[in-house]
Order: sequence, then C-alpha cells, then structure tokens
Amino acid sequence: METFNVAIVGATGLVGQEFVKVLEQRNFPVASIRLLASERSSGTYLFFNHHKIEVEKATPKIFRDIDIAFFSEGVDITRRLSPLATEAGAVVIDNSAAFTMESSVPLVVPEVNPEDIRWHEGIIANPNCSTIQLVVALYPLHKISPIKRVVVSTYQAVSGSGAVALKELTNQAQLILEGHRICPHVYSHQIAFNVLPEIDVFLDDGYTREERKIVEETQKIMHTEDIAISATCVRVPVYFGHSEAVNVEFTSPITPEEARKSLAQAPGVKILDDPNVSFYPQPWAASGSDHIFVGRIRKDISHPNGLVMWIVADNLRKGGALNAVQIVEEGVRKGWISSKRRSVV
Amino acid sequence: METFNVAIVGATGLVGQEFVKVLEQRNFPVASIRLLASERSSGTYLFFNHHKIEVEKATPKIFRDIDIAFFSEGVDITRRLSPLATEAGAVVIDNSAAFTMESSVPLVVPEVNPEDIRWHEGIIANPNCSTIQLVVALYPLHKISPIKRVVVSTYQAVSGSGAVALKELTNQAQLILEGHRICPHVYSHQIAFNVLPEIDVFLDDGYTREERKIVEETQKIMHTEDIAISATCVRVPVYFGHSEAVNVEFTSPITPEEARKSLAQAPGVKILDDPNVSFYPQPWAASGSDHIFVGRIRKDISHPNGLVMWIVADNLRKGGALNAVQIVEEGVRKGWISSKRRSVV
Repeated sequence: METFNVAIVGATGLVGQEFVKVLEQRNFPVASIRLLASERSSGTYLFFNHHKIEVEKATPKIFRDIDIAFFSEGVDITRRLSPLATEAGAVVIDNSAAFTMESSVPLVVPEVNPEDIRWHEGIIANPNCSTIQLVVALYPLHKISPIKRVVVSTYQAVSGSGAVALKELTNQAQLILEGHRICPHVYSHQIAFNVLPEIDVFLDDGYTREERKIVEETQKIMHTEDIAISATCVRVPVYFGHSEAVNVEFTSPITPEEARKSLAQAPGVKILDDPNVSFYPQPWAASGSDHIFVGRIRKDISHPNGLVMWIVADNLRKGGALNAVQIVEEGVRKGWISSKRRSVV
Repeated sequence: METFNVAIVGATGLVGQEFVKVLEQRNFPVASIRLLASERSSGTYLFFNHHKIEVEKATPKIFRDIDIAFFSEGVDITRRLSPLATEAGAVVIDNSAAFTMESSVPLVVPEVNPEDIRWHEGIIANPNCSTIQLVVALYPLHKISPIKRVVVSTYQAVSGSGAVALKELTNQAQLILEGHRICPHVYSHQIAFNVLPEIDVFLDDGYTREERKIVEETQKIMHTEDIAISATCVRVPVYFGHSEAVNVEFTSPITPEEARKSLAQAPGVKILDDPNVSFYPQPWAASGSDHIFVGRIRKDISHPNGLVMWIVADNLRKGGALNAVQIVEEGVRKGWISSKRRSVV
C-alpha cells in the first residue's frame, strides 16, 4: 500500500489540529508525519496515533522528504513557505486564500470537481469554509436544473477566526453573565450575545472579502460564471459549525421533493428535515461530523423557480481539514497524486 | 390637554413592562393607569412614574373607565378579554397575532400606513416585531421604485419568546461554560452557543408561522400583494434586538446612494453605515433604542435592480410596545382616537 510522508504546516492552529485528528480517524496512509509551526510553537508536542511528536519550525530542508504538505497558515507565511515545499517535490494542499483564485491552481471540493485535481502543478487550493458547504449542497441540484442565482446569509462560528476567538467568546460570555463590561480584541465589537455582519475585510463595493470569496470560489469550483450570487456573512456567538440560509433560483422549477431525493443520494450530504418534530440542522449538533447537513427544504414562495434551504457543517472539518484530506485521497485513488514526489499526470 | 385612562393587559411580561417604560419616557398623557395580568401575578406591584401600582386580575368591570387598552397577551387570552375592553368603549391596541390578519382590523406601523388608524372599530393590531423593522426600512425605498421581491433571513433575539427565554439563555450559557450538559425547555433545542431555524410553529408548506407573518403582514401594511417575500427566521443567542439580512428587488434600479439618501430622511430610521471603521447596526447596541438601524447598504451583485441591507431594531420597543404607543399618539394627533370612550371617525 502506498504510504506518504506528510507535513502539517500550522499544526498548532485549530485547523492544524483538526488535520491531525482527521488523518488519524480516516487511517490516512501516513509513513511519517512532521508537525510544523512558527518559531513560537516549536519545541511543543502534539500527539499523532498516540505518538508524541515535536512541533518544529518550518525550514527549506524539512520539506525534502515530504510527499504531501497540508498548509493551514496565513496568506503571508503560505506565500513564503509553499514554494519551498513544491520545489522539494511535495504536493501542497493549501487552506489559506493565497492561491484560491489563481488560474494555475485548482480549487477543489471532491464532491463537485474532483477532475480538477488532475491538472495541479504542485499546489491545490482548499476553498473557504462557507463556500465548501454551499457548493456540496448546490451541485446536485445544479445538475437537475442549472442554478441562475443564489442569495445566502450566513451564521458563522467563531472557530473560523482561530483558537483566540474561542477564548474571546468564552471570556466575554463569562464577564457579561457576571455583569461586567467587556473589551473586544479579536472582533471589532462584542461577539458574546451579539451578531456581527463583518467577516474578513470590507471591499470597495460594500461587500466583505468573505462574501466575495463565496461568489468567486463557487463560480470557479462549479465551472460557471452564470451563477449570480449575493452573500451576507455574519459572525454569531457559536463555537463550531457554520449555518447558511440559502435561496436558490433555478432555470426551471424544482420541487422540494425532487431536491430532497437528489440530495439524499448526494455524496457528503445528510438531510435532516422533519419540521413536525423540530428536526433540522444545528451548528451545535453538526460539530465533529463529516457531513453537510441540509434541512428546511421548501419552495421559495417569492420565486416560481426557487427553493430555500438551511445548510450546516462543521467549519473546521468539511470546511477545512477534512476537505483537504479528501482532495488527497481522491487524487491518490485516481493516480493524480503519488508518493513518488512528482504527481503522475 | 387630552389625557387618557390607560390599561396594560399582560403588564408583567417583557413587552408589558416595556409598555410601562415607553409611556413614562414619552410622557404619554396618562390620566390613570391600570396594570392587568393573570391571576398568578395579581397582587404584585410595578412602578409607573415612581408610583407603586398593584397588578390586578383583568375583569369586565375594570375596562369601564379605560380609554386605551394596550394588550400584550397570548392569542387565547386576547380573544377572550379584548371584547370586554371594546364593549366598554376602550380602544384596544393588540400586540398578539389574534387580529393582525382580520380585514376589519387595521394593522399599523405609523411610519408606513398611519391613515389605516382612521377606520378602526375599536381594535388596532400591532404587527409582529420582525415585520415592523422590515417595513419601516422598506417603505421609503418602495416609494422610489416599487418593490417586487424581498428575501430576508433573520437573527432574532430570545426576548421575543418572553422572560422565561432570557432566563433559559443565561442558564444554558452558564451551564455550558461550566462544562455541563443542558436540557432545553423554552426552545426545542439548546439555544446558548447555537442557532435554531425555528420560530413559532411549522406550517404545511415548510415555512414557520413567523415566516408567513412577515409575508402577509408586510403586504397588508404596505397595501400591496405585488411584493413577493420569502423569509427564513432564525433564533440566535442574543438577549435583545432582532437583525435581518435583506435582499430587495425593485422595479427599476436604485443605487446605494439613493437608498441612503432616502433612508436618511425616513421617519424612525437611523443609518449606521461606514464599513471602513466597522460601523454597522448590532443588536447589542440597538437594545433600548427607538430607531430602526440600517447599515451594510450595497448593490445586490446578483440582480440588476437589487439592494442588500442589514436592519436591526429593539424587538421589544419598536418591535412591540413603542410601535403600539406611537399608533395611539398618531391616532390622537389626527383625532381618530380620543379619550371620550368612542373613537371619532
């Protein structure tokens, strides 16, 4: 069996640690693993399959024996370190936004565009968390009737901002429950018991970069610029799990029953949809799961060709580490990624 | 100066207490005030303008001298008690859903359809909280170019479910922060650190009654069935203040600048919209305020005639008690409501 020398770059972050967990849980064929992080974290230890592994500072030499490098770092560090990895012959799966929109880099969700893995030149980009869960649910429906327009409003967990944001939500909630005032650090304003319509920076057109990512990434992954999308991305005081209220306009009408039937067979999707017993996806319950959960599927009563859905997924797993590992699994299965240091095209 | 004998029915509830506060703060010309509640609460005391007032059980006799009865009770109690009030000659302003869609009862937001107060026959209905803040922001724009379609996703505070829900959020948050499991009572599932796409009961078409209310009430208040609306209503772990992400489709294009100019002059609206300094409406900050706050005004990049907005308001004030008091103020100003026990039509 083909095994791989794996590196996780940014191993001490939330998504980095999720990589460790996902590789273990899926019995990914790891020959060796190196856990890389900034100087600050080097010398600490993490566990992989009950082995204590030292966290190291990333150096050019370190990538010499690596087959697969999972990157989960900021854009700047990624831009600096990823060439070292690719020059050493490793395949980089990048979770940052550094390469997502570069035309020479495939942006892949295995349930949607696995064939794009084939043309990678050493780097494959992992989409943004809020895009991944959206396209996994949209794509099966798009195949029934091409999608013309999507309006999406998100309810995004603080874990998307890293471990420091989890701490901030906890601290603020505690202080407020004790009657104190709080001072925001990670976010512009209080996040506990509040919602903030600001994720990533604001752009000139009034949208945030997070909102634009959903548009551009969806179009790239689904190979069409004919899907018009408007997003409002909102941070909510939830630890794990992004939720999305999604209105979809198709070329021709799709009934909720057709949508349900199609999504029931779709890879990676699980339908939770029985209003009679208040059964629908919730972020709290989706946390730790591999699925994209879809519920509240109903006709969009404001448009003859419309459907409305409620989509929830664990933003660190399918929205991050899991999707990246699935990209490699699919690439290996098809022979587009191999352990011989050069991908077989 | 004309003064009024006022009754608040359901005075011990969250909206009931907000009625007391709003009447005080606005110096409403109160001749006398009676605070009514269920048997359970009768005998307790509340304060109005520093006077200690006993809470009484509502009886037919009690309405004999009342000019204005603000109702903030459940549908059943409202249906039972409101005829006693109207038969005694009081004008009922009802905050429940008992009469909202009855064709003989005006449903009023003073900024939008004050003229409907004129034809009341003893009962005027106060719309649902999520409708009020929506129409106050939509109406000024509708006058520029008729609205064809609205897609709205809400982020609604727990105070909309009453005082017991405030307590539930606090208890659950505390238990979870201490590492305990929780057991939901008010809501179907955990609300702390979670979001729930369920407000009011589910109907046959997959929408909730809250979602349908937004559609029907908006059309009734704005006097048109030509506005198609689809809503997804979501409960979020926020104490006070409802937020709404709103995509609006107009008959002809409106620029964000035109919308901003129109909303800046609109009654009851305050624009908070400077992305450069993360300035936008938030429920935490809107709590206790009389305004409908609008921000994140931008072009809907998915539709040539579209705009997107983020609308926040205090659900207990403008979404409840304040709007009801403003209805009376407007009716009195126009001579459609008077203290002489019969409205002058």
